[in-house]
Amino acid sequence: MERVLIKDLKNEVGKNVLIKGWISVRRDQGKMVFFDIRDRSGSVQGVVLPGATEAIAVAKEIRPEFVVEMEGVVNKRPEKNMSTEIQNGDIELEIKSIKIISKAEVPFELNSELNLDTHLDNLPYTIRSQRGKDIFTMQATILEEYRSSLRKQDFTEFQAPTLAGADAEGGATAFKVDYYYNKVAYLATSPQLYKEIMVGVFERPFTIAKIFRAEKHSTARHLSEVTQMDFEMGFIKDHTDVMNVLEKVIKDVVQAVTTKHKDIFARFKVSTPLVPEIFPILKLYEAQDILGAPHENDMEPEQERSICEWAKEKHNSDFVFITHFPTVKRAFYTYEEKSEAPLSRGFDLLFRGLEINSGSQRIHNYEEMVRRIKERGMKPENFSFYLQAFKVGMPPHGGSSTGLERFTARMLEISNIKEATLFPRDINRIDTLLSE
Amino acid sequence: MERVLIKDLKNEVGKNVLIKGWISVRRDQGKMVFFDIRDRSGSVQGVVLPGATEAIAVAKEIRPEFVVEMEGVVNKRPEKNMSTEIQNGDIELEIKSIKIISKAEVPFELNSELNLDTHLDNLPYTIRSQRGKDIFTMQATILEEYRSSLRKQDFTEFQAPTLAGADAEGGATAFKVDYYYNKVAYLATSPQLYKEIMVGVFERPFTIAKIFRAEKHSTARHLSEVTQMDFEMGFIKDHTDVMNVLEKVIKDVVQAVTTKHKDIFARFKVSTPLVPEIFPILKLYEAQDILGAPHENDMEPEQERSICEWAKEKHNSDFVFITHFPTVKRAFYTYEEKSEAPLSRGFDLLFRGLEINSGSQRIHNYEEMVRRIKERGMKPENFSFYLQAFKVGMPPHGGSSTGLERFTARMLEISNIKEATLFPRDINRIDTLLSE
Repeated sequence: MERVLIKDLKNEVGKNVLIKGWISVRRDQGKMVFFDIRDRSGSVQGVVLPGATEAIAVAKEIRPEFVVEMEGVVNKRPEKNMSTEIQNGDIELEIKSIKIISKAEVPFELNSELNLDTHLDNLPYTIRSQRGKDIFTMQATILEEYRSSLRKQDFTEFQAPTLAGADAEGGATAFKVDYYYNKVAYLATSPQLYKEIMVGVFERPFTIAKIFRAEKHSTARHLSEVTQMDFEMGFIKDHTDVMNVLEKVIKDVVQAVTTKHKDIFARFKVSTPLVPEIFPILKLYEAQDILGAPHENDMEPEQERSICEWAKEKHNSDFVFITHFPTVKRAFYTYEEKSEAPLSRGFDLLFRGLEINSGSQRIHNYEEMVRRIKERGMKPENFSFYLQAFKVGMPPHGGSSTGLERFTARMLEISNIKEATLFPRDINRIDTLLSE
Repeated sequence: MERVLIKDLKNEVGKNVLIKGWISVRRDQGKMVFFDIRDRSGSVQGVVLPGATEAIAVAKEIRPEFVVEMEGVVNKRPEKNMSTEIQNGDIELEIKSIKIISKAEVPFELNSELNLDTHLDNLPYTIRSQRGKDIFTMQATILEEYRSSLRKQDFTEFQAPTLAGADAEGGATAFKVDYYYNKVAYLATSPQLYKEIMVGVFERPFTIAKIFRAEKHSTARHLSEVTQMDFEMGFIKDHTDVMNVLEKVIKDVVQAVTTKHKDIFARFKVSTPLVPEIFPILKLYEAQDILGAPHENDMEPEQERSICEWAKEKHNSDFVFITHFPTVKRAFYTYEEKSEAPLSRGFDLLFRGLEINSGSQRIHNYEEMVRRIKERGMKPENFSFYLQAFKVGMPPHGGSSTGLERFTARMLEISNIKEATLFPRDINRIDTLLSE
């Protein structure tokens, strides 16, 4: 018999079907045994009635997470047992026979509330929870729509490298790799230099890239490895062209998740993001004025949260751009127009209290770039490959970088970024604890 | 004035327009100067006529790869100068004014024929060539369609980690990373273990992942860092279910590139891939019989080429599956049915002479998996995280892995994989030569 997916059982009422999946719950009522069975498409209740002697015997053996094949008849539930709240709440599978495919032994109930370390220690099991599945289904949609929106805006995807010859941004936070013959390589801290090079090829390149930071912090925000969604574009007027592309991308993503994932937002008791016609834009000092804070070169996490509350209240927006940061606080390649110094053409995008994106116009003139590299105490020789792109003619360009895990975390208002990272790596853990 | 993309100039005949782009070619004829100008959308010929005194002066300064803005009038070309062979072959831009945005100094002509090392030494410049742009446009389409086809087949994307706690496959080819506090981490040699874990969550997960191999080979096939397109699926009958999904993916990709990239195939003088209704499938020993070769446990590169010629001749196919490899030659997690021993349920997919994909049914039983790990002389403790997934119930599953760069290279019949890798890393080079 061909397998029927659980989401399609509603079309099979009265018929004999075969389903395959995992046991989520078993309720043994002595003469009868009830199950919740799930597959990739959803969940259904099944029951083994007292008459089905063989099936009852197998049912008694079964425990949560057993992998099974079940044959049975799809019945409408009696009116009093119907539920409109849950998937397949109006039907039930009357199980005629069960075949155990794999046995299982679980450490605790799947949807238990757990502290983060227990969750992570048991990750291959705990991400099977509805919550785990929801978070990473949401993440897959964010990623897909991010790419799709950029393609619609004429961007072309490329593969940025992970192995780097030098710690390009000079921040001393790059992990070292033992390369061949005792040479040292580094893990990329950003795909920045490569996407600028690719402006010369595609004019509008984008990449989804892993980046790595060896920051000795153990916080809810720090990870050794994260996924960045990066784009870059040539022939811009200034950073506002970049902000416009980004705003369109964000709107497309929000539109998609709002349409596709109403159920996930409901289970998380989180509203879908508020997106106004135009995202509010504040200069850094304006934001600090609003908060009654002194003019500093950057914003503290607490200030990011407060200004987001302001944007929500005043503009009905879960997003707010902050622009005009001092050049000294931004990456070396950030463009500064003389008349605007010491402020640069950079921006951050905040979402529900957290910076999820950073971008700017970049320097495009070769001599200016070399000067800036030297100013920052770095050596142009270390950037010889990158600088070639500028020697052979670069247009005014800019771009931005969105953290996939951060975006996911704020989308579902998850407080710790690690829960929105599938297999988080930090100072203490790569799958298992490093101290073990 | 708003910028017009070069591909849209044909709709602007008789009108005054502004274009922005790079100078590909300058032909100074004394009183007149001709240019080929390109942007992300294409290329057009422009001419500065003798009357345009100011523009002529600027035109004389301009060299290849200068970034410019040009205003002018779009004219129909006289009949005798029309070309139907090239984009915009029936129009010409009569340039009225030119603004130089960035100057450039190039080491040699852009579309020169180069040896591989010169090409790679100057990569930020040389990938701007039509050939470079073509290869990576093709690669972007392959990647997009691969994902799109899997999504249509009910797969969900996830992010596999790059940093690993151990050299999981035990092949001693993993790069070591200096992690925190003198701990050693490794670069992933495969996303395999994670996609198996994800079968428990999505049943049908897929991932696009960088993998790393520290193989001390300097050949046209070896790279330190490549991109793998990986999927895995639960509740399979055997490996043929996996082959069917893969075959559909490959057909979707070929369909897409055949439709979108006729021009690229034409420029490469390569035909679009031959795809029969059903891909030919040969058992390893059958393939060796056809070649009149002795029964060995694997195929030599030369045999892969020969059997592909056979498939093309006999089945009008550029693809051929090879199955039933001996278990000893396959990864430790490969499934072997007792009645089929010592052969396993694995397969390779060859495309135009090269293996581009490898897959199999995997072991799903916990005890069996532990036994196999020990058999291979590895320690189950090193796989404790992975093995958790098997303890909590795994269905029969399998999957496969396609090399993006290999697939791209064979698509355009590029002999060296490095040319189909955007920023290739090998034993001698990370951007610049390591010996420098």
